[in-house]
Amino acid sequence: MKRLGRNPILTPRDVKPTRDDLTVLCTLNPAAVRFAGQTLLLVRVGEAAPARAGFVGVLRHDAGAAGVQVRHIPIGDPALDRSDPRRLVYRGRTLLTSMSHLRLARSRDGVNFTFDPQPAVFPSTPYESFGCEDPRITLIDGVYYVAYTAVSEMGVAVALASTEDFRTFRGHGIIFPPYQKDVCIFPEKVGGAYICRHRPYLSEFNDACIWTAWSPDLLCWGRHEMTLAPTPGTWEAGRVGAGAPPIRTSEGWLEIYHAADEAGRYCLGAMLSDLDEPQRVLSRSSRPVLEPRADYELAGLYANCVFCNGLVVDEGGAMTVYYGAADRICAAALTSVDEMIAAAKS
Amino acid sequence: MKRLGRNPILTPRDVKPTRDDLTVLCTLNPAAVRFAGQTLLLVRVGEAAPARAGFVGVLRHDAGAAGVQVRHIPIGDPALDRSDPRRLVYRGRTLLTSMSHLRLARSRDGVNFTFDPQPAVFPSTPYESFGCEDPRITLIDGVYYVAYTAVSEMGVAVALASTEDFRTFRGHGIIFPPYQKDVCIFPEKVGGAYICRHRPYLSEFNDACIWTAWSPDLLCWGRHEMTLAPTPGTWEAGRVGAGAPPIRTSEGWLEIYHAADEAGRYCLGAMLSDLDEPQRVLSRSSRPVLEPRADYELAGLYANCVFCNGLVVDEGGAMTVYYGAADRICAAALTSVDEMIAAAKS
Repeated sequence: MKRLGRNPILTPRDVKPTRDDLTVLCTLNPAAVRFAGQTLLLVRVGEAAPARAGFVGVLRHDAGAAGVQVRHIPIGDPALDRSDPRRLVYRGRTLLTSMSHLRLARSRDGVNFTFDPQPAVFPSTPYESFGCEDPRITLIDGVYYVAYTAVSEMGVAVALASTEDFRTFRGHGIIFPPYQKDVCIFPEKVGGAYICRHRPYLSEFNDACIWTAWSPDLLCWGRHEMTLAPTPGTWEAGRVGAGAPPIRTSEGWLEIYHAADEAGRYCLGAMLSDLDEPQRVLSRSSRPVLEPRADYELAGLYANCVFCNGLVVDEGGAMTVYYGAADRICAAALTSVDEMIAAAKS
Repeated sequence: MKRLGRNPILTPRDVKPTRDDLTVLCTLNPAAVRFAGQTLLLVRVGEAAPARAGFVGVLRHDAGAAGVQVRHIPIGDPALDRSDPRRLVYRGRTLLTSMSHLRLARSRDGVNFTFDPQPAVFPSTPYESFGCEDPRITLIDGVYYVAYTAVSEMGVAVALASTEDFRTFRGHGIIFPPYQKDVCIFPEKVGGAYICRHRPYLSEFNDACIWTAWSPDLLCWGRHEMTLAPTPGTWEAGRVGAGAPPIRTSEGWLEIYHAADEAGRYCLGAMLSDLDEPQRVLSRSSRPVLEPRADYELAGLYANCVFCNGLVVDEGGAMTVYYGAADRICAAALTSVDEMIAAAKS
C-alpha cells in the first residue's frame, strides 16, 4: 500500500463547524463510495465546545427542542478524569471530548476533496446524543446504506440510514443494541440473506472480536457467529474489527480490517473469507498491510493509529484505501485488489 | 405476593448431577409453563467440579469430542481472584464457579416438583462452553420457544431453542450477540412483528436497562429501543432486567421484572406497558412486589436476591410466580393478575 503524497487529504481546517462558537477537532474515519462520477467520502467530523480557561467543555445533542448543548466542567473537579484524550470520565460517567456528525466530502479525482457546507447525518435521536461516528456505506440494489455508530448515555449502538442521492438521508433506527460497533454490510445477499460483520465490545469474558450476522431485511439481525479473534503476541493481539465493506473476488470475500496490539497501536490487515460461508476466514495477512509510520499517523488525538472504513475499487482493480489517521485526519493509500489478495494469503 | 409454605420448592439435593464426580451447586431461575396438565419448570442447574484440597475447580464444555472438562487452579495462585462468589478471575479472564444446564422439573400441583433424570438443554455449541443459564419460555402458535443465556469465552450472548413436547429441543443459534441477557419474548405478535425485551450489559456509557426489540421471524432482531432505565436512589437504582414473558391484560402488557439497588440487592417489580406500543411503559410499582426476606433469599450463593423468569396464570387470574432465591434454590409465591396490575399502578 502506497500513501498519497498529498496526505493528509482532509483535516479539521477544511471544514466549517456547524456553529460559529464550536471548533472542529477531527475529521476522520471516512466511508467511501463512487457516485455519479465522483468519489464521495462520508467523514466523521468531531466538534468541540468553546474553550473556556480552567474548564473542559462537552457537547450533547438533545433530541427535543434544545438541540446542541454546551456544558463546562471545572478542570480541578476531583470527579473529573481526563486520562484518555478521547474521553472524559465525570462522576463515573463517560463523556466524549468531541461530538461527531457525518459530513460528505466530494472529489472528481479521489484526491482533492471539498466538504459540503452542511452535515449529511447529524445527531437527531436520543440514541445519538453524544454523536454519530465511523460510517460504512454499502450499495445494494440502487440504495446506499450507511451503518454508523450511535453514541449516547444509553450506550454505544449501531444505527442505519439510507440514501439514493447523497442529498437526503433516511433514518432506520438502531440495528444493533449496545455495546456494538464496526458494522459493515456486504454488498449482496449470500444464501438468500443479507450479511454483515459486527463487533461486540470486549468484556471480562471476551476479547473484541469480529462477528458475522444475517438478516432478511437489513433491519433485524440474527444467527450471530464469531468470525475472527485477536491473536496473542501479535500486531492483532488487542482487538480486531471490520473495516470497509467486503469486495467479492474470485478468491473469496476480500476485506480490509483493523487490529490493535496490546499497546493499542492500530494497523490494517487483509482477510479473505468463503464466498458462500463468509463466517469462514480462508486466510489473512500475517503482517499489517498498513501500519502507522507517517507523522500524521504517529501523532494526533489518538497516536499510532490507522483505521479504515472506506475504500473504492476501479474497473481495473486499482484500489484506493481511505483511512483515518491518529483519530484526527483523513488520508489515503493506493493498492490493488490483487495486491491485497496476495497480502491476505501471505 | 405470598410465599409458599413449602418453599424452597427445588434445591440442589433434588437433582442428580450429570456425572458422578460433579456436584450440583445451585438450582435456580426457572422458566415456567403449563403443559399437558402439568406445571413444568425449566430450571438452571449449576454443577461444580470435584473438590480437591488446595485447588478451585472449574468446568468447561468443549463442543468437540472432549465434552465436559475439569480444570483445577491452585488457590494460592496470585493470578487467581475469588472475591465474587459466582466467578473466578484467573489471568485476567472470568471463569464461572459452576457450569449450568437447563433441566425440566414436572409437577401436577405446581408445588411438588420432580426433576427429569437428564438435562433438557445442555451446552452443545462453542457459545455455551461456560453454560446455559436463565431461560424464559414463550408459547407461540403451538411451539414453546426458550430464550436463554449462552456463556462462553466469546462472551455472554442469548440463544434460542424450541420444543413442542418438552422431550426434544431444537437449537436455533445465537439471537443476541454479547453482551446481552434477560431476553423474554412476548406471547403474540404486535403490529405484525414479534417482540421481546432484552438487556444490554452496562458499560462506561450506560446503565443496565431493559430494551425492546422487534423481529419478523424470532431469529433476527432489530429496531432496538430503550424501555426502562434504573431510577437513582431507589430499590431499582443499580440495574433492571426483564423477568417472565409479559401477560396480555385489559390494562396493558403486565410483566414482573427484576431490579437491583446500588448495593446489588435484587427485588421484583411489576410493570404495565402499552398493548400496541410495548416499548411505552404506562406505570410500574413504586415499591418491590417481592423483596428478599426469607432465609433462603437472604443467604445462598448470591445473598439478598429474588429473580423471576417464569410464572403461570390460571383461568381465574391466579398467578404463581416462580423465582430463584439467592442464586441457589427455586421458590414460589402466589398472587393474582389483578393484584399485580394494582401493584404496577401503585
